[in-house]
Amino acid sequence: MNLPINNETLQKILTEMDIVHISDATIRQCCAVAKALEDVSETKFSHLEIGVPGLKACQMGVEAQKRALNEGVASIYPNIAGIPELKQNASEFIKAFLNQDIEPKCIIPTVGSMQGSFNLILQCSRLHKDKDTILYINPGFPPHMLHSHVLGIKQESFDIYGYRGEKLKEKLEEYLSNGHISAIIYSNPNNPAWICLTEEELKILGECANKYDVIILEDLAYMGMDFRKDISVPFKAPFQSTVANYTDNYILMMSASKIFSYAGERISLVAFSNKLYKREYKQLKELYGIGRMGDSFTLTFLYIASSGTSHSAQYAMSAMLKAAVSGEYNFVKETKEYARRANRVKELFTKYGFNIVYDKDGETNIGDGFFFTVGYKNMGNDELLAKLLRCGIATISLKTTGSCQFGVRVSVSALSDEKDMQTLEERLKLFVELQ
Amino acid sequence: MNLPINNETLQKILTEMDIVHISDATIRQCCAVAKALEDVSETKFSHLEIGVPGLKACQMGVEAQKRALNEGVASIYPNIAGIPELKQNASEFIKAFLNQDIEPKCIIPTVGSMQGSFNLILQCSRLHKDKDTILYINPGFPPHMLHSHVLGIKQESFDIYGYRGEKLKEKLEEYLSNGHISAIIYSNPNNPAWICLTEEELKILGECANKYDVIILEDLAYMGMDFRKDISVPFKAPFQSTVANYTDNYILMMSASKIFSYAGERISLVAFSNKLYKREYKQLKELYGIGRMGDSFTLTFLYIASSGTSHSAQYAMSAMLKAAVSGEYNFVKETKEYARRANRVKELFTKYGFNIVYDKDGETNIGDGFFFTVGYKNMGNDELLAKLLRCGIATISLKTTGSCQFGVRVSVSALSDEKDMQTLEERLKLFVELQ
Repeated sequence: MNLPINNETLQKILTEMDIVHISDATIRQCCAVAKALEDVSETKFSHLEIGVPGLKACQMGVEAQKRALNEGVASIYPNIAGIPELKQNASEFIKAFLNQDIEPKCIIPTVGSMQGSFNLILQCSRLHKDKDTILYINPGFPPHMLHSHVLGIKQESFDIYGYRGEKLKEKLEEYLSNGHISAIIYSNPNNPAWICLTEEELKILGECANKYDVIILEDLAYMGMDFRKDISVPFKAPFQSTVANYTDNYILMMSASKIFSYAGERISLVAFSNKLYKREYKQLKELYGIGRMGDSFTLTFLYIASSGTSHSAQYAMSAMLKAAVSGEYNFVKETKEYARRANRVKELFTKYGFNIVYDKDGETNIGDGFFFTVGYKNMGNDELLAKLLRCGIATISLKTTGSCQFGVRVSVSALSDEKDMQTLEERLKLFVELQ
Repeated sequence: MNLPINNETLQKILTEMDIVHISDATIRQCCAVAKALEDVSETKFSHLEIGVPGLKACQMGVEAQKRALNEGVASIYPNIAGIPELKQNASEFIKAFLNQDIEPKCIIPTVGSMQGSFNLILQCSRLHKDKDTILYINPGFPPHMLHSHVLGIKQESFDIYGYRGEKLKEKLEEYLSNGHISAIIYSNPNNPAWICLTEEELKILGECANKYDVIILEDLAYMGMDFRKDISVPFKAPFQSTVANYTDNYILMMSASKIFSYAGERISLVAFSNKLYKREYKQLKELYGIGRMGDSFTLTFLYIASSGTSHSAQYAMSAMLKAAVSGEYNFVKETKEYARRANRVKELFTKYGFNIVYDKDGETNIGDGFFFTVGYKNMGNDELLAKLLRCGIATISLKTTGSCQFGVRVSVSALSDEKDMQTLEERLKLFVELQ
């Protein structure tokens, strides 16, 4: 084993890549650094930096997509608002697993939730003259912040670490009472920290959204994967927690990437509450000729973003939603594999002296899932990330996710077997020896 | 036949749809008006307003896409820069039909050229502090203008009608000499007018791009379809005309929607010149941490737009490009059907007293293809569009394409058989009787 890599080699690679602080590096830069270190050390790294679905695609989707291709959909522009059967099945899926009534017309496919959040942030910033800022509840998914940055939209944010439970209310009011926030965005379960907002916190969010006429953008990329409660039985409680229980000012994003392991085909859903879909915004009408929120999203924003989502992938998504609703495909059970891995990997990290940074929801320990966060004693972000890299472990810094805590995000998706676990353990041992 | 529809019925529908001037209606609004009139009159319209591929998808694409799905690509995030075989085949395709040498790494798939133009316009507006305006050579594709409008980017434009040939130079200098233009966008062959820029005009554009350090965004959605010259033999002259012969400051967009009748899957290529791909922009680096043009497009812009293009569709595109290069699939011959239709439809319109508005490229008549433009005597846009609608013919106004001429755009894609032609003729007769 050619590990640990010496510090000079690492610093040389960082300099070549124009990276001053490794803790500021984006996911893609971290991947590139890991790749360069793999080449130098001739050693395959433990890739904990990336969140790729490590499971096989839902086969009902694959079959439906091939059927649609056979039937000739490749030549025909997709309906930007979505094919009718997809919208219908999505509505039933949302009833089955979130217990929300959303009409089919209010649910629209997008090219991944990435396209959804990009365009929702853009649209929300165009609704009112005075509401020109997006509020991020961090830690968060770095591209969400990049949306605003690239689009030139103002953003504010806070780290939720110190504002859990009822403290969240005061913190939100601090921003919202200024009247300049158009929308609040977060993912739940949370990427990177895997914390889940409690019902108390979701209620606070919903009530604030009502009080200040702010839209909640809730990214449910990992829905069902808070395995502390089993939402897998359709139309039966418990259901996926959502802010939709507490306000009509919501828009949900539900990606196929993780729940159906369908990341390759870039398909997701954006679901407006029935009320918000129909709402007329004078400024949208003045700017683009279409004032109704839902129609504007489709006919103005998605139209010029990509003119819709892959026609065949819409059939795949439709079939997967249907299979989930009928109980034929248990997406919760399928993804539970991630929890098994997380449990094992957490054990390893704690065994070698690491601590879970974001560790609780209320009084309860966070669940096991796709991600978790670890720190090491009082070690700063740069040192922690660099030393892990030198030992063959790639992660991303919490700093890039808007967190103010010291630590890194660990993604368990790429650790598929016991050999991967053993390798990781050897490297953690090496890390301790470096101190 | 329940035609002509009386004027009161039409006006009532326009009022209900909040359309004050029908000549300002977008394509989608025109479609909606036509649909409402079809319901009222219980008559299927002649749909000349939409440009949908009216042919079957290239079968090599369908087969390759299904193969990729069988091989499991649906679960794996696509490489945002494109799968290697697609990039390689695209490079060969560009050599075969445009006679340009572009390295594979400089060619990147996008979710339709719509995603390409959206992100290129956004990126080009971020290159220099002082270059903050996009120049449109009109008539043009309305969504291209909507990109800038929605993104809040300044735009200027002119109607090329009066500035063909050497007059183009002076007109371009008028804008470019101010130093505020970052990029120029047009489609060639032109949508809506089907004019094609002559070699003289492309040379002027290229020279101006060099002189003023401006980027040319050339949309080749209808490449090969200027049937006056047959570019169908790979690696043999004549080749598709392109500004790439006259400057390195170019980016090409090549959609699969029309050339391979693959609109449903939303896939296209963006090709940077080798030189432009590698160019470092200080401002990109400062803003987003990545300064190189091509890497910035992929890792900053496409990453947050949709995290790449459908994985399986990339295999489809790759196979179609390869089949075109090998001569197995003659995309020029396949799309020539549109020319046959255009020839016939032009005959009909001129028979009933219409004139072709944009009629010449230099001394030569424009070719027959996907679109053409017609006017009727001195009739204004509103009256022309309204009267055609009343007779069961849906079109879009030239006004919405940035043209200053009176007339409408005719798309021939939906007229597939002789019966469609006969119906159109009866309606044109009816139109004349309305006068």
